Amino acid sequence: MNKFKLEEMLKAFFIEDFGDLDITTDHIFNEKDVGTLTIQAKETGIFCGEKIIKTAYNLLDDNVDVKLHVRDGEQIESTQDIAHIHGPVPSLLKGERVVLNLIQRLSGIATKTNRAVTTLDSDHTKISDTRKTTPGLRLLEKYAVRVGGGINHRLRLDDAVMIKDNHIAFAGSIKEAVNRVRKNVGHMVKIEVEAEHEQHVLDAVEANVDVIMLDNVDLDQLYKLIQLIPRDITTELSGGINIKDLPKYRDLNVDVISMGCLTHQIEALDFSANHHFEKERVS
Amino acid sequence: MNKFKLEEMLKAFFIEDFGDLDITTDHIFNEKDVGTLTIQAKETGIFCGEKIIKTAYNLLDDNVDVKLHVRDGEQIESTQDIAHIHGPVPSLLKGERVVLNLIQRLSGIATKTNRAVTTLDSDHTKISDTRKTTPGLRLLEKYAVRVGGGINHRLRLDDAVMIKDNHIAFAGSIKEAVNRVRKNVGHMVKIEVEAEHEQHVLDAVEANVDVIMLDNVDLDQLYKLIQLIPRDITTELSGGINIKDLPKYRDLNVDVISMGCLTHQIEALDFSANHHFEKERVS
Amino acid sequence: MNKFKLEEMLKAFFIEDFGDLDITTDHIFNEKDVGTLTIQAKETGIFCGEKIIKTAYNLLDDNVDVKLHVRDGEQIESTQDIAHIHGPVPSLLKGERVVLNLIQRLSGIATKTNRAVTTLDSDHTKISDTRKTTPGLRLLEKYAVRVGGGINHRLRLDDAVMIKDNHIAFAGSIKEAVNRVRKNVGHMVKIEVEAEHEQHVLDAVEANVDVIMLDNVDLDQLYKLIQLIPRDITTELSGGINIKDLPKYRDLNVDVISMGCLTHQIEALDFSANHHFEKERVS
Amino acid sequence: MNKFKLEEMLKAFFIEDFGDLDITTDHIFNEKDVGTLTIQAKETGIFCGEKIIKTAYNLLDDNVDVKLHVRDGEQIESTQDIAHIHGPVPSLLKGERVVLNLIQRLSGIATKTNRAVTTLDSDHTKISDTRKTTPGLRLLEKYAVRVGGGINHRLRLDDAVMIKDNHIAFAGSIKEAVNRVRKNVGHMVKIEVEAEHEQHVLDAVEANVDVIMLDNVDLDQLYKLIQLIPRDITTELSGGINIKDLPKYRDLNVDVISMGCLTHQIEALDFSANHHFEKERVS
Amino acid sequence: MNKFKLEEMLKAFFIEDFGDLDITTDHIFNEKDVGTLTIQAKETGIFCGEKIIKTAYNLLDDNVDVKLHVRDGEQIESTQDIAHIHGPVPSLLKGERVVLNLIQRLSGIATKTNRAVTTLDSDHTKISDTRKTTPGLRLLEKYAVRVGGGINHRLRLDDAVMIKDNHIAFAGSIKEAVNRVRKNVGHMVKIEVEAEHEQHVLDAVEANVDVIMLDNVDLDQLYKLIQLIPRDITTELSGGINIKDLPKYRDLNVDVISMGCLTHQIEALDFSANHHFEKERVS
Amino acid sequence: MNKFKLEEMLKAFFIEDFGDLDITTDHIFNEKDVGTLTIQAKETGIFCGEKIIKTAYNLLDDNVDVKLHVRDGEQIESTQDIAHIHGPVPSLLKGERVVLNLIQRLSGIATKTNRAVTTLDSDHTKISDTRKTTPGLRLLEKYAVRVGGGINHRLRLDDAVMIKDNHIAFAGSIKEAVNRVRKNVGHMVKIEVEAEHEQHVLDAVEANVDVIMLDNVDLDQLYKLIQLIPRDITTELSGGINIKDLPKYRDLNVDVISMGCLTHQIEALDFSANHHFEKERVS
Repeated sequence: MNKFKLEEMLKAFFIEDFGDLDITTDHIFNEKDVGTLTIQAKETGIFCGEKIIKTAYNLLDDNVDVKLHVRDGEQIESTQDIAHIHGPVPSLLKGERVVLNLIQRLSGIATKTNRAVTTLDSDHTKISDTRKTTPGLRLLEKYAVRVGGGINHRLRLDDAVMIKDNHIAFAGSIKEAVNRVRKNVGHMVKIEVEAEHEQHVLDAVEANVDVIMLDNVDLDQLYKLIQLIPRDITTELSGGINIKDLPKYRDLNVDVISMGCLTHQIEALDFSANHHFEKERVS
Repeated sequence: MNKFKLEEMLKAFFIEDFGDLDITTDHIFNEKDVGTLTIQAKETGIFCGEKIIKTAYNLLDDNVDVKLHVRDGEQIESTQDIAHIHGPVPSLLKGERVVLNLIQRLSGIATKTNRAVTTLDSDHTKISDTRKTTPGLRLLEKYAVRVGGGINHRLRLDDAVMIKDNHIAFAGSIKEAVNRVRKNVGHMVKIEVEAEHEQHVLDAVEANVDVIMLDNVDLDQLYKLIQLIPRDITTELSGGINIKDLPKYRDLNVDVISMGCLTHQIEALDFSANHHFEKERVS
Repeated sequence: MNKFKLEEMLKAFFIEDFGDLDITTDHIFNEKDVGTLTIQAKETGIFCGEKIIKTAYNLLDDNVDVKLHVRDGEQIESTQDIAHIHGPVPSLLKGERVVLNLIQRLSGIATKTNRAVTTLDSDHTKISDTRKTTPGLRLLEKYAVRVGGGINHRLRLDDAVMIKDNHIAFAGSIKEAVNRVRKNVGHMVKIEVEAEHEQHVLDAVEANVDVIMLDNVDLDQLYKLIQLIPRDITTELSGGINIKDLPKYRDLNVDVISMGCLTHQIEALDFSANHHFEKERVS
Repeated sequence: MNKFKLEEMLKAFFIEDFGDLDITTDHIFNEKDVGTLTIQAKETGIFCGEKIIKTAYNLLDDNVDVKLHVRDGEQIESTQDIAHIHGPVPSLLKGERVVLNLIQRLSGIATKTNRAVTTLDSDHTKISDTRKTTPGLRLLEKYAVRVGGGINHRLRLDDAVMIKDNHIAFAGSIKEAVNRVRKNVGHMVKIEVEAEHEQHVLDAVEANVDVIMLDNVDLDQLYKLIQLIPRDITTELSGGINIKDLPKYRDLNVDVISMGCLTHQIEALDFSANHHFEKERVS
Repeated sequence: MNKFKLEEMLKAFFIEDFGDLDITTDHIFNEKDVGTLTIQAKETGIFCGEKIIKTAYNLLDDNVDVKLHVRDGEQIESTQDIAHIHGPVPSLLKGERVVLNLIQRLSGIATKTNRAVTTLDSDHTKISDTRKTTPGLRLLEKYAVRVGGGINHRLRLDDAVMIKDNHIAFAGSIKEAVNRVRKNVGHMVKIEVEAEHEQHVLDAVEANVDVIMLDNVDLDQLYKLIQLIPRDITTELSGGINIKDLPKYRDLNVDVISMGCLTHQIEALDFSANHHFEKERVS
Repeated sequence: MNKFKLEEMLKAFFIEDFGDLDITTDHIFNEKDVGTLTIQAKETGIFCGEKIIKTAYNLLDDNVDVKLHVRDGEQIESTQDIAHIHGPVPSLLKGERVVLNLIQRLSGIATKTNRAVTTLDSDHTKISDTRKTTPGLRLLEKYAVRVGGGINHRLRLDDAVMIKDNHIAFAGSIKEAVNRVRKNVGHMVKIEVEAEHEQHVLDAVEANVDVIMLDNVDLDQLYKLIQLIPRDITTELSGGINIKDLPKYRDLNVDVISMGCLTHQIEALDFSANHHFEKERVS
């Protein structure tokens, strides 16, 4: 993950959360008061957030020491200790809300992605995210999808071509739309076409695209359409697919199922922050 | 809402989503191709997003014209048209993902807040948010809570005092914690204390704080504790309260119930973007 | 004080002051030339600036060592040594102008605030600042007011309500203005009303606001109006009050006197920077 | 003045002053309420701020119309109308504090500079500022000095050489310090040397520098030293010179007198903002 | 091209070039002086810069009118008029240097790319750029390559996989390196492997990568290696290839030849700015 | 060089080059894999880039150790080792492209400048750059010119006056143009006038400007014009002068020859990055 972007994001989040000062903590505690903050899981799931915790506390205070007991992608259980963070109490408390807000969301995404992967239970088909990420957090949310065992669809509008119904309709045909794009884009770029029915699929195959997305097609039809696609073209299912329905798609053996819900309906995983402030003081 | 912050946010979100260029749309459409994008509701709920839609498309292209058919806070129904956006097709398409991502989340928050307000059905008790907002989006999410009929708790750590268990434990007593703060903060700042049992409440009342938050107290106990608090001290319930449980708290007649779930577990409200590109061309 | 904001501000100030390079110092000194810079008070006053000196020199050069001999809020005398800063000479010299410009202004504000507090000499009445701070420096100037023994009025337009004459006039009455606001703002927000005559005061009391500001009222009238305000409403005097007039207001025993002049007419406290460059060289 | 810098500064100042929203004005007024704000002088002085008023209100709201009745540098009298600003009331009120804070300071600087120029009353000697400007506001404050009839000393450390006592002491001699610099800096850069006694002046003349600054030299001595300097070297007086003492220096006929006090001890010029909100409403 | 990025870049470039003000132009001309600036080609080549000219002058001044006589990608001849820019003289002059600096470089890149395409004269093989762009200008320089008839290699390290010699050496084999990557990257990402000899090619073919780059291989060897690569794997030549040598590679009929020199050794195309300032004045 | 600007630039360049992550390196290497990167010269020239290499790798990773074997301004030979950089392999590889892109350009500029200085071979005449630098890189490119033995012309439009033909034409005469400027600019600012023929030179001498630039004048004429200029006015030649023609101008003995080509037609100096990754691992 790009550390320069991560640091910029965290600083902006702290400025958003603190404002000019923490009028509660700064008037009750002193920088010489030290203690330990324990981040603890309150639910079972997949952890995602080691870089968040470390980078956030490093930015906040050089005198804070972070010990992580779990790595990204590991299964965690309720009441399990995730991290011990030791240092000046004001810094411990100030970092808490932003750090929890982030690791809860990211672990929620990793957990949901992992549930999708496990529910699908396929040797072949991979679970992918979409561009339906929270504005401002795409870097982190796409990372959480990878941590959960999924793969990333395109990162932004400049790294892969996705020809949708309106592009096709406007260009007049898949062939024409693909031609216009192919003349202009580089050789490192894949071209995907959204297909909703048989003619779309046939046209896309003829245009020799890299990926065909079957969008909102019902199951019976899917079996038929997939037959029409040669194996060296990647197949992708999409369109409001829920985790509980994934087993239905297992035998289709498509290459990828992309799911907007991974990042769109975030179910945060719960963590708590427990404090142990011993009134010990740095001399 | 601060327009300078909103514009900065939207520009950053567009840079995140576009990257350097839209390699699909920019090669299929031309700036002279014009059309209409219709944003349509796909679910019943409370709309929140008029400033998003207008500001986003104004930033993208001076030649785009936005017509909004719903105001923030209004009830919307499935298939209802929310906005017609007319202008150059490349701009219409580029704005779509960021705008939908935002208005779905914000309308989701407004709808959930409204459901809480309606479920509680109290003439007196208000529903409030917390600081558990999505990092980077607090400005917008707190706005959505207001649109949904809720009120905002503190915006950040500098605008109100919130003395929690660890502050009390460290200071030694509520009295001492309040004293330390009161000596330092200005006269425009309210002081809230988190109380978990009777002694806390008695101490907070004696310290004459502005707000007492009863945190994670069970219902029977709540009735008792509230009796101890004079009417000119604001009472707030908190601690993992769900919408479906709200009616249980109605008769307590507290001033505020604050709910982290409003912004923490976002259930996005669904909207679609429908296109009508007529191959008309600006001459 | 928010360290992320402070660091951003200092970097911007250094870029403003340096431009691309220091064409004098960089061509006369070498990074291996070390020396000591002594910041010395040239006037009596209250010091404010320890975070400025430390953070500025830490940002400039890891090899600079800062020893502070005074803490924020302490009384300093002319010729007293404030800090010794040891390290590479080019860094010592480059930091000097920005650091002096800031600590002179901030110590000036702290000193003036302290003079106001001392002149008023009240056990009860506090001295407060206003929003008349230097654009770009509010974070620092409000901190200096606290260091000088004053308190802060609202930090910005979002953390407290202040209903002024034009709001009242437009809404039609104090009651209507307060009602419009109260329906919308959260329970952590105080509401202040500006009152210029008896009817205003009576209306504000009836509306049960948190704070009543008596603005530009003459002394005789003030005694009368204050009688009308119950003790649980905070009373604030405002309107061009000078330090030398403060004793006149002592017996009114209001809660707060707010003074724009604390930050509006800044009388910088003078400091000098003395150099001791021994031509010792780091090997 | 660099409009890109000015716009960036004003946006930052508005964000500092507003926070997330104006919780008073936004809940009492509506965007359709229009009115007129009149900025009026409350003291006699030199006006500086036309670009501030225009740019600030243009940034805030496209629907605001600004009419300025005074140009930068013109003499203004108490109660004189400076500008009429017509448009949506919320925008009028939000811009007010930042605009007043700035034009009061800048007009204060222009007025003080003008007083210095007038007090000195010299056909030849010019009044110059220093680098003792408010951090973050140098662009504006140096502009105000020009508006008041003064000239600018160097803008930053990269646009002119200024060899001070510590540079001389460290290099060993003025000759050596000048040589080190002259070898490295470009032909568009002037070199100034600070001289405190006769030997300094003789050395600086021999080194053929562009400007000699006589720093903290008493008046008798000044007459002697100036004789030693050929006319094609610019002469500058400096060192804690006050406006009231300027006439004493008139007959010296030096080229420039530089005064830190112009920007260091800012005496803001007072302006008021008067409102006329007619409850007219845009339909 | 992302307009938000372009505008940010241009503002930064203007701030870099202007500093605080244009001390020459601002003191000689007045905002009411209007005139016409004609940008004229001084060499034959391919034009690239219409968005630069338009956006730069729109940012500088609303009152400037830009008329472009050439579109990006068109052939231009010496003395041909490229654009007429009419408006206030100070704005015309201030924009000139930044605009010329950019369009000269970009047109230089487009022209060089076009010369490569023409020299190669192939129906099949395309010319591509690399990541050897000027830091800070990649967005613009990659655009200029497209304008000149070339295609873009990856935009940055996150949009395509490029396995180089050190990756292979470290992983132990091409197979292992490809496996590590393929497990982790999404289905929209192409994988390219750098091959320097026959075994590399055979391994890459077996690993079924998307693109094989033949790096620094001599011509005889190239004919042999290309035979080993099936047509559905894209072939790319690279490694210090000069434009004049391109015809030698024509018959290889590879898919892409990538050339660092397109952006690495920029030969700016010359343009002049001619002024016509009529002393007409806007009334 | 301003370290705050340098760090900001490098972070922006890394964000430009990396995007969200390095999908190749991050999936093949681990942070615990350490190795050594050797930067080696591939051509003879003048090195410029020590601050780039050190600052870039310090920003990227605290665990990277940089050993530089050459100082800025030193002559380097093909195959000479410039720097050894030891640390985690992912950081080594990520820094490589940006660092090479920069030091190749900067060393190219330093080398070209040095070639100009050597070719001219004058005891008196200096070589200067112009404002024709790459937008965004002026700070670095002007530094490279100094490293190569040249001097800098003005840094931006605010640090020196340059009156060109269009200023003269518009003002009516050199005298009038100089007067307008002289009334307004400070005493630390030099005034240069562009002269194209004898009358210009005579006028400029009479106006007693600091620098006269003889622009696009042929050699015979130059000898004549220079006679007209007294020695205390700096003389500058300009106008498309190439390095190979410099000896022709040697005997003119002007003060400065300014050459746009130093930064306008950058011939990058070639460096390679060689890797030695031992599969040693940090435990």
